[in-house]
Amino acid sequence: MQDPLIDLGFARVDTHRAQRTGDPEVVFAQGKSPDQTVHIMTTLQQAHPDRAVLATRVDDRTSRALQDSFAEVRLDPVGRTAVLGPLPKAVGQVLVVCAGTSDLPVAAEAATTARVFGTEVDTISDVGVAGLHRLLAVREHLDQANALVVVAGMEGALPSVVGGLTGVPLVAVPTSVGYGASFGGLAALLAMLNSCAPGVTVVNIDNGFGAAVHAARIARNAR
Amino acid sequence: MQDPLIDLGFARVDTHRAQRTGDPEVVFAQGKSPDQTVHIMTTLQQAHPDRAVLATRVDDRTSRALQDSFAEVRLDPVGRTAVLGPLPKAVGQVLVVCAGTSDLPVAAEAATTARVFGTEVDTISDVGVAGLHRLLAVREHLDQANALVVVAGMEGALPSVVGGLTGVPLVAVPTSVGYGASFGGLAALLAMLNSCAPGVTVVNIDNGFGAAVHAARIARNAR
Amino acid sequence: MQDPLIDLGFARVDTHRAQRTGDPEVVFAQGKSPDQTVHIMTTLQQAHPDRAVLATRVDDRTSRALQDSFAEVRLDPVGRTAVLGPLPKAVGQVLVVCAGTSDLPVAAEAATTARVFGTEVDTISDVGVAGLHRLLAVREHLDQANALVVVAGMEGALPSVVGGLTGVPLVAVPTSVGYGASFGGLAALLAMLNSCAPGVTVVNIDNGFGAAVHAARIARNAR
Amino acid sequence: MQDPLIDLGFARVDTHRAQRTGDPEVVFAQGKSPDQTVHIMTTLQQAHPDRAVLATRVDDRTSRALQDSFAEVRLDPVGRTAVLGPLPKAVGQVLVVCAGTSDLPVAAEAATTARVFGTEVDTISDVGVAGLHRLLAVREHLDQANALVVVAGMEGALPSVVGGLTGVPLVAVPTSVGYGASFGGLAALLAMLNSCAPGVTVVNIDNGFGAAVHAARIARNAR
Amino acid sequence: MQDPLIDLGFARVDTHRAQRTGDPEVVFAQGKSPDQTVHIMTTLQQAHPDRAVLATRVDDRTSRALQDSFAEVRLDPVGRTAVLGPLPKAVGQVLVVCAGTSDLPVAAEAATTARVFGTEVDTISDVGVAGLHRLLAVREHLDQANALVVVAGMEGALPSVVGGLTGVPLVAVPTSVGYGASFGGLAALLAMLNSCAPGVTVVNIDNGFGAAVHAARIARNAR
Amino acid sequence: MQDPLIDLGFARVDTHRAQRTGDPEVVFAQGKSPDQTVHIMTTLQQAHPDRAVLATRVDDRTSRALQDSFAEVRLDPVGRTAVLGPLPKAVGQVLVVCAGTSDLPVAAEAATTARVFGTEVDTISDVGVAGLHRLLAVREHLDQANALVVVAGMEGALPSVVGGLTGVPLVAVPTSVGYGASFGGLAALLAMLNSCAPGVTVVNIDNGFGAAVHAARIARNAR
Amino acid sequence: MQDPLIDLGFARVDTHRAQRTGDPEVVFAQGKSPDQTVHIMTTLQQAHPDRAVLATRVDDRTSRALQDSFAEVRLDPVGRTAVLGPLPKAVGQVLVVCAGTSDLPVAAEAATTARVFGTEVDTISDVGVAGLHRLLAVREHLDQANALVVVAGMEGALPSVVGGLTGVPLVAVPTSVGYGASFGGLAALLAMLNSCAPGVTVVNIDNGFGAAVHAARIARNAR
Amino acid sequence: MQDPLIDLGFARVDTHRAQRTGDPEVVFAQGKSPDQTVHIMTTLQQAHPDRAVLATRVDDRTSRALQDSFAEVRLDPVGRTAVLGPLPKAVGQVLVVCAGTSDLPVAAEAATTARVFGTEVDTISDVGVAGLHRLLAVREHLDQANALVVVAGMEGALPSVVGGLTGVPLVAVPTSVGYGASFGGLAALLAMLNSCAPGVTVVNIDNGFGAAVHAARIARNAR
Repeated sequence: MQDPLIDLGFARVDTHRAQRTGDPEVVFAQGKSPDQTVHIMTTLQQAHPDRAVLATRVDDRTSRALQDSFAEVRLDPVGRTAVLGPLPKAVGQVLVVCAGTSDLPVAAEAATTARVFGTEVDTISDVGVAGLHRLLAVREHLDQANALVVVAGMEGALPSVVGGLTGVPLVAVPTSVGYGASFGGLAALLAMLNSCAPGVTVVNIDNGFGAAVHAARIARNAR
Repeated sequence: MQDPLIDLGFARVDTHRAQRTGDPEVVFAQGKSPDQTVHIMTTLQQAHPDRAVLATRVDDRTSRALQDSFAEVRLDPVGRTAVLGPLPKAVGQVLVVCAGTSDLPVAAEAATTARVFGTEVDTISDVGVAGLHRLLAVREHLDQANALVVVAGMEGALPSVVGGLTGVPLVAVPTSVGYGASFGGLAALLAMLNSCAPGVTVVNIDNGFGAAVHAARIARNAR
Repeated sequence: MQDPLIDLGFARVDTHRAQRTGDPEVVFAQGKSPDQTVHIMTTLQQAHPDRAVLATRVDDRTSRALQDSFAEVRLDPVGRTAVLGPLPKAVGQVLVVCAGTSDLPVAAEAATTARVFGTEVDTISDVGVAGLHRLLAVREHLDQANALVVVAGMEGALPSVVGGLTGVPLVAVPTSVGYGASFGGLAALLAMLNSCAPGVTVVNIDNGFGAAVHAARIARNAR
Repeated sequence: MQDPLIDLGFARVDTHRAQRTGDPEVVFAQGKSPDQTVHIMTTLQQAHPDRAVLATRVDDRTSRALQDSFAEVRLDPVGRTAVLGPLPKAVGQVLVVCAGTSDLPVAAEAATTARVFGTEVDTISDVGVAGLHRLLAVREHLDQANALVVVAGMEGALPSVVGGLTGVPLVAVPTSVGYGASFGGLAALLAMLNSCAPGVTVVNIDNGFGAAVHAARIARNAR
Repeated sequence: MQDPLIDLGFARVDTHRAQRTGDPEVVFAQGKSPDQTVHIMTTLQQAHPDRAVLATRVDDRTSRALQDSFAEVRLDPVGRTAVLGPLPKAVGQVLVVCAGTSDLPVAAEAATTARVFGTEVDTISDVGVAGLHRLLAVREHLDQANALVVVAGMEGALPSVVGGLTGVPLVAVPTSVGYGASFGGLAALLAMLNSCAPGVTVVNIDNGFGAAVHAARIARNAR
Repeated sequence: MQDPLIDLGFARVDTHRAQRTGDPEVVFAQGKSPDQTVHIMTTLQQAHPDRAVLATRVDDRTSRALQDSFAEVRLDPVGRTAVLGPLPKAVGQVLVVCAGTSDLPVAAEAATTARVFGTEVDTISDVGVAGLHRLLAVREHLDQANALVVVAGMEGALPSVVGGLTGVPLVAVPTSVGYGASFGGLAALLAMLNSCAPGVTVVNIDNGFGAAVHAARIARNAR
Repeated sequence: MQDPLIDLGFARVDTHRAQRTGDPEVVFAQGKSPDQTVHIMTTLQQAHPDRAVLATRVDDRTSRALQDSFAEVRLDPVGRTAVLGPLPKAVGQVLVVCAGTSDLPVAAEAATTARVFGTEVDTISDVGVAGLHRLLAVREHLDQANALVVVAGMEGALPSVVGGLTGVPLVAVPTSVGYGASFGGLAALLAMLNSCAPGVTVVNIDNGFGAAVHAARIARNAR
Repeated sequence: MQDPLIDLGFARVDTHRAQRTGDPEVVFAQGKSPDQTVHIMTTLQQAHPDRAVLATRVDDRTSRALQDSFAEVRLDPVGRTAVLGPLPKAVGQVLVVCAGTSDLPVAAEAATTARVFGTEVDTISDVGVAGLHRLLAVREHLDQANALVVVAGMEGALPSVVGGLTGVPLVAVPTSVGYGASFGGLAALLAMLNSCAPGVTVVNIDNGFGAAVHAARIARNAR
């Protein structure tokens, strides 16, 4: 059995997590120095040589540090993710649906995460509720997924409309897109928490990562 | 010219308002004693004998006091309104659209107000966004109105969807229907203020009256 | 094909919902009169004779009205639910875990809902984080479920701890249990949204119903 | 009939909107790259060759990109707008009234928007309530407009005073002008939502665009 | 010299306060039992036999207890005040101006307090900003006072308008009159704190007492 | 060794807590039925026959149920506490200092709790900062305690003043005493969290219990 | 009689204000361009040649522009004020008391404003409540002033303590000094609004100007 | 006896504090100029030549100024502290426990402070609740300390878990680590205030200093 943690001094890497939860720890790079992120990624890759490891909220400086250390790292500057190592076989499908062009970074973080956590991913963008025909045109796609991640800022109405069209398990992601009384995504967050469509669940503002982890776990275990 | 105000001691009735704004003062009965409301209604009716006068937020005690004083008063216990005197000729049309059964009191207050302020009114209820076909089934009605009052609680998504379907001027009314993180209607209010449909304007939580005054002024002046 | 909606005047019952989402509409009885709830339940039962229909937030007066109208109604005074008609075959399993005795009503609402939505349900109560051994003693149960509903008030820490122990999809329900700076469940809600355990999703305060709908849809479709 | 949407990859341009609502889609440039804004403007102009198209929240970089791509673009650095193509015939009149010098950018956004949406526009500035004679001096202008857009920061009192002087439909725009307990415009927003003048409707903080869309729709349809 | 405090067990009455600040302690009766209020009033009256003592927030039960104990107590059921003992000679004048009928209890508390603290008081009511002529009709009164207490709920605009008409020191009192997004007087409080009229100071919501203490101290010391 | 928990169905009583933390579990009676509280108290008393057990937030109905079940229960109607069994030997001293008469219930809860948790307790009441001489008169008492619990509502200034006079470890308890912009104790809570006196720690609003547990643990272990 | 306003295009300078309120308009330079501030100052100085005019919130760029335009301008870089023209004769005295070194900019703005508005000013700094002896050492100064401006950040306790020591009219100024749960001065603002010392009035966060205007009007009119 | 304060003009250094509270004043360098901090440190060191003096929130510019003035200053760039002079003898032990790598600066501030205030300090980092085994592995350390400082951001659950494992007095420090609905540490703060573990006390967000002062006072006085 693997050592349950590796103490790097500044961090106790939880190398036991994959055994407990099925997936390795992920590095939240924001608030960490580029060196710290490189160090933890090295540790995680060594602990999980046959499984992709992921860092999120990777800024430009950390991207360069990762490229310097790992020739094979896959970086996504839109979604601010970094992936190292072989992707797992994809089982099931997650569909990421997003309301507007400005929500794309959060959708991209979700898409990469879901793939690293072991499912197929597809993304449909710019189907906000002020032009319903855009959403109705892709309605049949919704029912084919095993789990939905629905991303929206401003008034956050999209999950309610999607949740009324299909019974596929749905996670809503409020984004900080908006201004004034959006209060950094609070308006969308509250709207999603009060959705009249039954079964809508919600994650933190801009948390594409968390929504995708949940959705991937549903999808890869679905019939 | 009429006296610009009548001093009742506890109130200075603004009998000049109809000249300035086209409509008599309205009594907001909440926070006033039944006697005070009766007194102000009497003054308003005398100042405007050929025009209906309105009281809103009329509770049971005030309703009884009004019935005792005015045999001909028209009370609506759902919308909590009281009307005295002849209705003006109706010009134009306001359509009140509401999301759920629990929003009906606010919709009723809006409907009565719009009629007293001089327009025809029609109401469509229970067309929440979790069952879009209910709204799409009445879509043609939306374009025929001169102004829309759209009432919704919980996540307050209905105005965004309606505002994407039609260019008729639209006033959104958030209601206090909901629980938990609805915070007494705050969630719906914020959602409506952040609507991605252009041109949606908003009034205070549960303020069917204010929305209808605005809508009636649009409708009665429309081509 | 069934008529997509039945207009009761005060409500447009969405009889098409089961076709779109797999489950009939549910009555949120709070804010509706006992008569309105009875009326909608009658309509739903007629539209879905071979499938249980559910009402939530049923208070004492509505309970009595339902008993008077439906001899066979199953009422749960703790969870404030009412169920009419045959339960569907249970597929998969949802586990409801709750932190304290005062959270039991929300847990009960979740348990009844999950059963009506077609899964087995088990409940583990009073395993708050201030006595970790109580939770660790039931740890093996967690991994056996297809979906978890984790209910907690006050500081809302339980989902983070459970989410670190298992990779089963987890929905957290903040409750309004607490006082002072709990602000009616806001503290627990914020804590759950900020969970450091990846994949935790959240519903509105006291919304056991919504969490269970989501969890049941996961469980009944799981391998 | 026109194609209902054009898929640019990062955006699904809603070219059907003018048919549904009477006006083409508008580009909210904030949060979009200069290239994205140029791209969408090109698409919109091609879809609506005989009608002006508008971008709002245009910063310096996007302004330069637009000038490089469209020699004929009309830029307003105060209101941060860009307009391409022939203005529609102006019908009716919108009057923009603003409280202070610092509110001018929001007023300018409103003025340009109203003109693009098909009405005449006039602006009266710096008539804050602490010097009432400034407002009373322009009182007669108020009644001549078909719709009013009233812009104010700080305590947001101007719409209440204007709304007491005239019955012209009025949209209030709170601005983020202020400091401390203005909380980025929240104080003005709340004040306007609680206006004692009947019929005042409100839009998001600094949303001169939304207010003007509403006002233009009223004015161009007024008798 | 007087004893600086008298210990009643449940309270340490600050009998030294008049020496330090010029006025005896006042009993805030809310949250105290009728007995406790009677007891403290007795102590204060004995310590200040030649000076009126005041209790505020006196409810019905405490009113009756005070009447039973002190035949000569002067009660005001509107302002919820109780006064015992001889009023001081009135020096200077405080003018209380209030926006609406529902604000009268707060205005009455202010008026009684100012008189007990040693000034003449006059009250002008129902001069809300939606009917400016009502305020302009009493404009000359404003300049004659030594200090103004301006009371308003809802959007709280009245102090800004009054503060623009006169340079008399002005204290604004927000009231809890309103609903929805008034949030119990928060909207009026924020508006008054952000007043564009220079020199407006503010007290807690519904705190007519505190405003009057400040105003009386100004007025009785004015030339 | 004792069984680590006793499962009552509705509760898993943590009978292992005294071993882990030195003190038995305490019953928070609010939100529990009188029967549930009696049941848990019985279990706790049996598990800890030689140690007092405590219930807090005991209302009238639960008080009567406890008296019916336990002849020897000691009830404090002011602090809303119930104690069963022999008090531990008192070691060290906690001093409870409170600002006003209305804060006494919270102070009483703290005092009873500290005694049950094994220290001597003394209480000084009504020493609010608006009459500093009342506090300076008891200054020498402050230094003699091993830990201080300082209770205040409204502006919550007392802990800052006390914390500047002595270096004894200090826990501040904000109370919900106040109105308007006290927002149920939020003002006092924020003030205490921002205290300029170093070392002030804070507990939840009205949480006299929690403050006393902390203080007692300090005092009983002090030299 | 003077012209009541001068229209600069971007501003309507209220040259009538001195007649109404006794003092010329003041320029709030924040949010205005250096040119606009210079322009308005020029207009004000011409309208009031024998009276000092004031600009507040003057940043470095505006300071240089003012120096370039007016050789005789007096700038205070700490308080960010600019003064032009002869100071009025000082009548009465305002005392500015501030809690900490970081509050000095707000205190300096208050001091300059009070002097421009016609009173003597004295300042006492760094007398925070965590070292009461610092305040008690200057106690006699407090009673000698005609009005007090008390400036404090963090927990904002100083006005309550000062207001308990003296009956001189007191205006409290919360500052944005603090971090975390000070929320930009909100904690101090709420504390001051809830002061247990009677008669404390409050202005906006960091609004030394407004407090000083109020205090100067009191002082210059005092006996 | 020492002079109770030294007036530096911009600051009144409270040199009497060590006599009252046992410890010298500490410089909060944020918001002070480097010169001011150097000046106050010089004064404190002269007043307390045999006792270490401390500055917190020391940024890079102030660090350099301190190094230029005091060759022997000990700077910690992580915790942003500066220490001058001989450390006191360490009595008792404080244990600082922190949840994640990003919380280390707050933990470091706490550790330095506790040492300067006279106790031994040990730190355990990165033991967040999503990997409980990391905490359980160090469980025995917890009981050996005299006081605990528990530092966590995001959902702030760690103090509840630690507080359930041990009865050692515990101070919780919420950090601003997080994003979105963490609202700058508010989520963690509220969670800690609502902890279900009895006796958890809380300080301001990121206030490692305050927590350590409290903890050191407990530890150095413990048996």
